[in-house]
Amino acid sequence: MSPKLTGEILRQLRQAMRNCKYFPEPIQAYIIPSGDAHQSEYIAPCDCRREYICGFNGSAGTAIVTEQHAAMWTDGRYFLQAIQQMDNNWTLMKMGLKETLSQEDWLISVLPENSKVGVDPWIIAADQWKSMSKALTSAGHSLVAVQDNLIDVVWPDRPERPSTQLRTLGSEYAGISWQDKISTLRSKMTERKISWFVATALDEIAWLFNLRGADIEYNPVFFAYAIVGLDTIRLFVDVKRLSDPILREHLQLDSPSKPELSIQTFPYETVYSELQAICAALGPKDKVWICDKASCALTQVIPKAHRTLIPYTPLCLAKSVKNTTEIQGMKMAHIKDAVALCELFAWLEKEIPKGTVTEISAADKAEELRSQQKDFVGLSFPTISSVGPNGAIIHYRPLPETNRTLTQNEVYLIDSGAQYVDGTTDVTRTVHFGTPSAYEKECFTYVLKGHIAVSAAVFPNGTKGHLLDSFARAALWDSGLDYLHGTGHGVGCFLNVHEGPCGISYKTFADEPLEAGMIVSDEPGYYEDGSFGIRIENVVLVIPAKPKYNYRNRGSLTFEPLTLVPIQVKMMNTELLTEKELAWLNDYHRKCREVVGAELDRQGRKEALEWLVRETQPI
Amino acid sequence: MSPKLTGEILRQLRQAMRNCKYFPEPIQAYIIPSGDAHQSEYIAPCDCRREYICGFNGSAGTAIVTEQHAAMWTDGRYFLQAIQQMDNNWTLMKMGLKETLSQEDWLISVLPENSKVGVDPWIIAADQWKSMSKALTSAGHSLVAVQDNLIDVVWPDRPERPSTQLRTLGSEYAGISWQDKISTLRSKMTERKISWFVATALDEIAWLFNLRGADIEYNPVFFAYAIVGLDTIRLFVDVKRLSDPILREHLQLDSPSKPELSIQTFPYETVYSELQAICAALGPKDKVWICDKASCALTQVIPKAHRTLIPYTPLCLAKSVKNTTEIQGMKMAHIKDAVALCELFAWLEKEIPKGTVTEISAADKAEELRSQQKDFVGLSFPTISSVGPNGAIIHYRPLPETNRTLTQNEVYLIDSGAQYVDGTTDVTRTVHFGTPSAYEKECFTYVLKGHIAVSAAVFPNGTKGHLLDSFARAALWDSGLDYLHGTGHGVGCFLNVHEGPCGISYKTFADEPLEAGMIVSDEPGYYEDGSFGIRIENVVLVIPAKPKYNYRNRGSLTFEPLTLVPIQVKMMNTELLTEKELAWLNDYHRKCREVVGAELDRQGRKEALEWLVRETQPI
Repeated sequence: MSPKLTGEILRQLRQAMRNCKYFPEPIQAYIIPSGDAHQSEYIAPCDCRREYICGFNGSAGTAIVTEQHAAMWTDGRYFLQAIQQMDNNWTLMKMGLKETLSQEDWLISVLPENSKVGVDPWIIAADQWKSMSKALTSAGHSLVAVQDNLIDVVWPDRPERPSTQLRTLGSEYAGISWQDKISTLRSKMTERKISWFVATALDEIAWLFNLRGADIEYNPVFFAYAIVGLDTIRLFVDVKRLSDPILREHLQLDSPSKPELSIQTFPYETVYSELQAICAALGPKDKVWICDKASCALTQVIPKAHRTLIPYTPLCLAKSVKNTTEIQGMKMAHIKDAVALCELFAWLEKEIPKGTVTEISAADKAEELRSQQKDFVGLSFPTISSVGPNGAIIHYRPLPETNRTLTQNEVYLIDSGAQYVDGTTDVTRTVHFGTPSAYEKECFTYVLKGHIAVSAAVFPNGTKGHLLDSFARAALWDSGLDYLHGTGHGVGCFLNVHEGPCGISYKTFADEPLEAGMIVSDEPGYYEDGSFGIRIENVVLVIPAKPKYNYRNRGSLTFEPLTLVPIQVKMMNTELLTEKELAWLNDYHRKCREVVGAELDRQGRKEALEWLVRETQPI
Repeated sequence: MSPKLTGEILRQLRQAMRNCKYFPEPIQAYIIPSGDAHQSEYIAPCDCRREYICGFNGSAGTAIVTEQHAAMWTDGRYFLQAIQQMDNNWTLMKMGLKETLSQEDWLISVLPENSKVGVDPWIIAADQWKSMSKALTSAGHSLVAVQDNLIDVVWPDRPERPSTQLRTLGSEYAGISWQDKISTLRSKMTERKISWFVATALDEIAWLFNLRGADIEYNPVFFAYAIVGLDTIRLFVDVKRLSDPILREHLQLDSPSKPELSIQTFPYETVYSELQAICAALGPKDKVWICDKASCALTQVIPKAHRTLIPYTPLCLAKSVKNTTEIQGMKMAHIKDAVALCELFAWLEKEIPKGTVTEISAADKAEELRSQQKDFVGLSFPTISSVGPNGAIIHYRPLPETNRTLTQNEVYLIDSGAQYVDGTTDVTRTVHFGTPSAYEKECFTYVLKGHIAVSAAVFPNGTKGHLLDSFARAALWDSGLDYLHGTGHGVGCFLNVHEGPCGISYKTFADEPLEAGMIVSDEPGYYEDGSFGIRIENVVLVIPAKPKYNYRNRGSLTFEPLTLVPIQVKMMNTELLTEKELAWLNDYHRKCREVVGAELDRQGRKEALEWLVRETQPI
């Protein structure tokens, strides 16, 4: 990897910072965050502005350019990569180290008095704007919104914003019509005396209208905004996408059933002016709902007195509780996904002794096998296929220069998933094709105990997922071990593989309580730097539990695994497992054998079926 | 209990609200919070203003009086009590119920336009002022600071502010001299470039100067403020208290060893004007540290640009990590406390069959026995002595009208503790003097499993206590049971029985990580309304643990019980206990027998010793 040469681009950017065409006065610093205008986790190539300016392409990082300096903040996962990808024009600011200045403090330390710091108000979230602005103002500077993005100005061959074909989801996949979703949203609005709701998150808009796109890799979403009033619906999207008759019929664009379900369509870019027009006509008591993570640009259009910021929108909350059709679809998707993985592991067992399988070719094989399954759309995230020491790099993605060969001597970790029209999958298995060491088995078994502790946990209705996180760690902690990531995240249904508002992580307190119908991952791990990585991940569905008692009639919940892929017994030290844990494991494997076995049989995949039967023998 | 008649007092208060002597314009509402100027949990009689105005004497509640209305907000623990104690002039606002308006919303709903809402700025914390003021302002009203407390104005026989004798703690109790504590504080200040620190919490001031008072029942503190600069120390306290030569010597008031350790003493009331004078002389870069829970009055004296608000002060943090002398003292205090409790239980066993022991007489007996121990000062909180259904009332305190007799047919719960010069105790035991039902035993055993799960937990350095809370609940949750309070609180050393910044509670996220030397309670419970209450509480010390591995050299922690009182085996269904749990229990009882047994023997308390030996037989 050689670093990107950025001298000329930086010269041009600094010229733009002085150019009064973009801002009436010269600006002394320009902030380039890593997101898009929808605060997406994954972004389209046209939005990779931070990568364009500095060369660093990790998922998290903020660049700041002043007349004299260029600095880029990222966290511990990316220190090495950032150093390799950035040239000498850039200073790496290592977040999380005590001696590293915050962006605010660094700006204050390098800027001349009374400086202007520019940022694209569409890319920065309203709450980030607020804290940055406060810090700069208190030091005599000011944060200013530069409407033209200055990276775009100096990026001649910037890709177009994607505008892929839209796919409609009928009720056989979505379960609830978009009309009913609009009605539910409006009843929440009425309940809280809200007149307008502004939707900015791409997965929420896709979910609301039962539409999917392919604008962002791995995420079946499309660039759009929506503004829903009590009797109007405005959809902002590249209008060229709306010519398909099936789509027009789905959205009832030409013959709405009721006036309040008539969707008015507008060009994507006009959301700002339309929201301005709406706000100009607000009555004194009208309130507008917008997520507190929405862009500063859109948030500030709404006058403060009318603005109601919410951490999770009613769409985010409704989307997280899957309906019966979605649950059925997720189950089907996981069975198909298990078929592909059983095939993969059976194939790996045969091929690895030949010494020809690498991290990359194994990942490719997994994708190939998944793509043979019905309604396969694509992967849900880049496959983490990692051998030995690479497994200890939590966000590893095999590259030609790091690619290792799978052998019978090292632990293999594969974290992968797919988008099917009926659901989204995400599964991690850690296996050994020879004989694991006693230490590898011991660590694997602690991780397994943690996985089971969460999966089998019974807890009261209303419990937040973060309260379950320690269950996943107790066995590791007992032996002085731990892992430095959360235990689980929400999973969308043919939507983003990471979604809010629920999860299982000690890092947050603001997650919403778990409810029956929510779907999260359960993925404890252990990582021995330079040696191996272990993670056991299932996607699990929150379901009602029926324990002996029912304190204060609150009801109880537990989890049902949707992922049905055997967990390698060879990696376990079964002496460390309790009877309850052994029973859980045997029951899980029995279910894998029955459910996935039937599908393997139906698909005539004999070798994989043999592998499955062997790997699910009771212990 | 008959309600307090408040018609005349309310008339007088409303007159004062209109009186321009107290505020230049009439005020339309007056807020009476329940705290004192130091945001103490327990308050002195002179500060019981909310009780005086409405009659309700629970620990939490806020009264608001307008021209037409009088309303009082409290939480579910106190609904019944508040209804009994307040007359018809008052409306009870039941906090936690969906339909109950917040104080802000209620004020906005009843006030005429452009109203002034008054409050004593010494009683309201700065952050509460801020949010209340914001809400009122956005509705066209304003929150105003009324310097004279209007309750005091209409309270003719208001008690004097206590000014009890101060007690000095030598290094044999405190472990660290106040001079060294000042030095450590100043090095923290220098590190963070802070010029002044304002101490407002009474326990922090008592800890800093190695002094104790008796101004507030159960809390060995005294009314004071302190302002520490880099080379000056100002102590604000009723100066009459400073005449004792031992005290003058302790504080080196007459011959300070170094000029920067010279304590300037000022009358308690002058803290405001002194802080004003300090702030008037601040340099442009000078910063003043104050807790974000300090009073609005003092906080607002410090100009915003110079004010650094902190959630936990350096004194709070330093105080929470006990030094070796304090740990030794806490251990001694707990042994003495165990002696008293062994005596109590042996006595109860003999007396209960006679039918003469009540909740109140049992509590009195416990106090009497504790008072026989060396260095006994008083109780650390009102004893919760509760039989049968009274045990299900979590904050129960026996009163003549609720007093039940202890029998061989009902569960008895006693939660009690004392202040000794060498330490503070807090212990709960739940026992049966006849034959407990299978259900009572089952519930008790789940609670015990939770208690052991926390006490025996091993966890990485840097773990926050709230992450351990679910361990205490897992066994209850498994059977559909739970309890609605946190699992543990920080405990002071001859200081407040509740202290920050650490604890074990799902309710907070902002607790500070546990460190070796911190002391917390471990007190899961189960409460069956109308039948019985169960709680098992030990005070435990955070100590280093030495598990097999040491991930990333972080080190591990666990707990050592300081409380050494047998847990009644008769209440257990031992079949539900794992081998590990049985081993923990036998080991705990062995330690009780050895350590407390030796002290009982030394004190010649034979019957209690026999009881102890019998109750700690291995199972």
